Amino acid sequence: MTTLITLTTDFGTADGYVGAMKGRILAMSPTARLIDISHDIEPQGIRQAAWCLLRAASVFPEESIHVVVVDPGVGSTRQPLLLRSGQRWFVGPDNGVFSGIIRRFGVQQGYRLHPETPWWKKHSSFDGLALFAPAAACLANGIPPVDMGVRGDDWMLLENREPVVQDGTLVGEIILFDRFGNGLTNISQAMLAGFQGRPVSAEVRGVAFEIRDHYQAGAGLDALALVNSDGCLELAVFSGSARERFGLTIGDPVTVK
Amino acid sequence: MTTLITLTTDFGTADGYVGAMKGRILAMSPTARLIDISHDIEPQGIRQAAWCLLRAASVFPEESIHVVVVDPGVGSTRQPLLLRSGQRWFVGPDNGVFSGIIRRFGVQQGYRLHPETPWWKKHSSFDGLALFAPAAACLANGIPPVDMGVRGDDWMLLENREPVVQDGTLVGEIILFDRFGNGLTNISQAMLAGFQGRPVSAEVRGVAFEIRDHYQAGAGLDALALVNSDGCLELAVFSGSARERFGLTIGDPVTVK
Amino acid sequence: MTTLITLTTDFGTADGYVGAMKGRILAMSPTARLIDISHDIEPQGIRQAAWCLLRAASVFPEESIHVVVVDPGVGSTRQPLLLRSGQRWFVGPDNGVFSGIIRRFGVQQGYRLHPETPWWKKHSSFDGLALFAPAAACLANGIPPVDMGVRGDDWMLLENREPVVQDGTLVGEIILFDRFGNGLTNISQAMLAGFQGRPVSAEVRGVAFEIRDHYQAGAGLDALALVNSDGCLELAVFSGSARERFGLTIGDPVTVK
Repeated sequence: MTTLITLTTDFGTADGYVGAMKGRILAMSPTARLIDISHDIEPQGIRQAAWCLLRAASVFPEESIHVVVVDPGVGSTRQPLLLRSGQRWFVGPDNGVFSGIIRRFGVQQGYRLHPETPWWKKHSSFDGLALFAPAAACLANGIPPVDMGVRGDDWMLLENREPVVQDGTLVGEIILFDRFGNGLTNISQAMLAGFQGRPVSAEVRGVAFEIRDHYQAGAGLDALALVNSDGCLELAVFSGSARERFGLTIGDPVTVK
Repeated sequence: MTTLITLTTDFGTADGYVGAMKGRILAMSPTARLIDISHDIEPQGIRQAAWCLLRAASVFPEESIHVVVVDPGVGSTRQPLLLRSGQRWFVGPDNGVFSGIIRRFGVQQGYRLHPETPWWKKHSSFDGLALFAPAAACLANGIPPVDMGVRGDDWMLLENREPVVQDGTLVGEIILFDRFGNGLTNISQAMLAGFQGRPVSAEVRGVAFEIRDHYQAGAGLDALALVNSDGCLELAVFSGSARERFGLTIGDPVTVK
Repeated sequence: MTTLITLTTDFGTADGYVGAMKGRILAMSPTARLIDISHDIEPQGIRQAAWCLLRAASVFPEESIHVVVVDPGVGSTRQPLLLRSGQRWFVGPDNGVFSGIIRRFGVQQGYRLHPETPWWKKHSSFDGLALFAPAAACLANGIPPVDMGVRGDDWMLLENREPVVQDGTLVGEIILFDRFGNGLTNISQAMLAGFQGRPVSAEVRGVAFEIRDHYQAGAGLDALALVNSDGCLELAVFSGSARERFGLTIGDPVTVK
């Protein structure tokens, strides 16, 4: 079995930067299997990348290597990382892109990559090519992580606001939209289950999103909510975009009574 | 030779849903080879997906497994399918996405997938991950289809309006636009060939699209038409978008005299 | 080791044309490994494709086969090419898409592909499927290039304007934007190094882009410039788009004093 290396970036593909990373990896580790997770993360969309990675990487076979390059601080003092989390490997910048993975699976081993090694030189404006691609290839080739960096134990995490309960009302917020205009909230299935009675709707901007089991069950409704595959409450419109229909934005309070 | 599994969705890639499907397949069937056909089908664009799949899947090696998840009815009573058509396998929802394939190649074996099996559990808001990815992996692993579902013989097909001949005039319509703004019509090469004389142009919204052999032959023309690689009449503008130039829309009548 | 075949097109993926090319290649050469470089080249964006290919292909392992289909002249008299350059193979139209590769690596062998061979028939509106995909598969299968075309030695190159020095001022221009709105210029690191003193800024449309080592070093600046991974001066805005902020366009003069 050859090693799986996945790629998640905000580069798009039209400029050739992703192509160059693929070439570099395959030149160093010819039998590695490359899998695209996404190159359409919005430019510098660290939070979006963190969710994308959490959803995707956590399903991959153990020992997969996940490379993430969403990196507004490239070339600065932000640290390049190699982490082992949940029996998988992660390579990318220390800017919060691994927040979801770290919160769910912890970090079993963590390294800050050296700026120079026998396998890569001092980098500059394109660490995806100069540093992260070679590091993933080295790992696939069996180079011990300890030869690529120094152990660390402190990683940048994105702010993670938890919902609060006020006067019998659960107040969360919208944290992300997906391509369909569905709004992901920070309200988990467990929070809903722990609530007294069975909540029937969530309210956002004065709109009642009735809670249903699946999208099509909301066919006759203006707005519906459901517990999605992330285990979180999601705001939706059947065959439409909740984001556009109601002018929702990230951070909008979501109340459940 | 390992099994080829292709993926066609309307998920985009930025949300991580496609990545999760890839991870699930590779975790269950580690030697499967994954090929992206498209993740940029317009949201819930069943007709677009049907054409995309017809063009692409029909060229793949026999025994390839094609997974299609364009699925506005996810979680509802619409049936999940496993079809064998033209010596290839197809996995996806029974909502018309397989219309093109079925009309061209027929269905040699068809199954409605069980909601639960030893390989997948009851699904909810993301059947791509919960059901269709595992089903494709099972098939790649040699699980007999009869263990995954019950035989069926009736499948949803998209409406397929044929051109009509009225008073010596062939009247078809625009059925789809491609990325370049070319308008695909439902007028086949055979219909044109069967027409008396050799048609010299097609008329849409009062504009004459002169029929040529290739795009660049229309360099000096306002508008051209040609028989494209699907064997259908296509409306085009050389180095431009016919859709935008003339405000064309799907359903516009196309007349050939 | 199986052969690597990369794909670079302006097709997008939603119409299924790229999927069809993949199917054709895999049907003819089942062990070939397909790698996507990009399908998001802007429609008929020959210059963008040339840069994308140069950045990506030049990093791939030797003997890789790079297929490029950005081809406004499809079906016309423009020639289909097979080139060997820098120990790699290139398949695509003779319209300038290989300019970057040819200027950097030269052409060691070049062929104009026959319109018909035992492996492909006369083509029409979709040479990507009819001609270029089969040619790449043939090459992967060990068919000698001389059986696929006739030797040639003259290839179309995109115009390549060099910066000029006027009265002690270096005047170049913007030649391309990337996804982030960074403006690539035709001013190389060598030109900057050869300049008297160390230039501190580049001026475009009256805006001074201060030269820094990396993007984040421009965090407090309105506008910065740096030598990017292509070895060229690039105009940028930290965490923003220089193109949008200053209304830059391709061809804008860039002066360095």
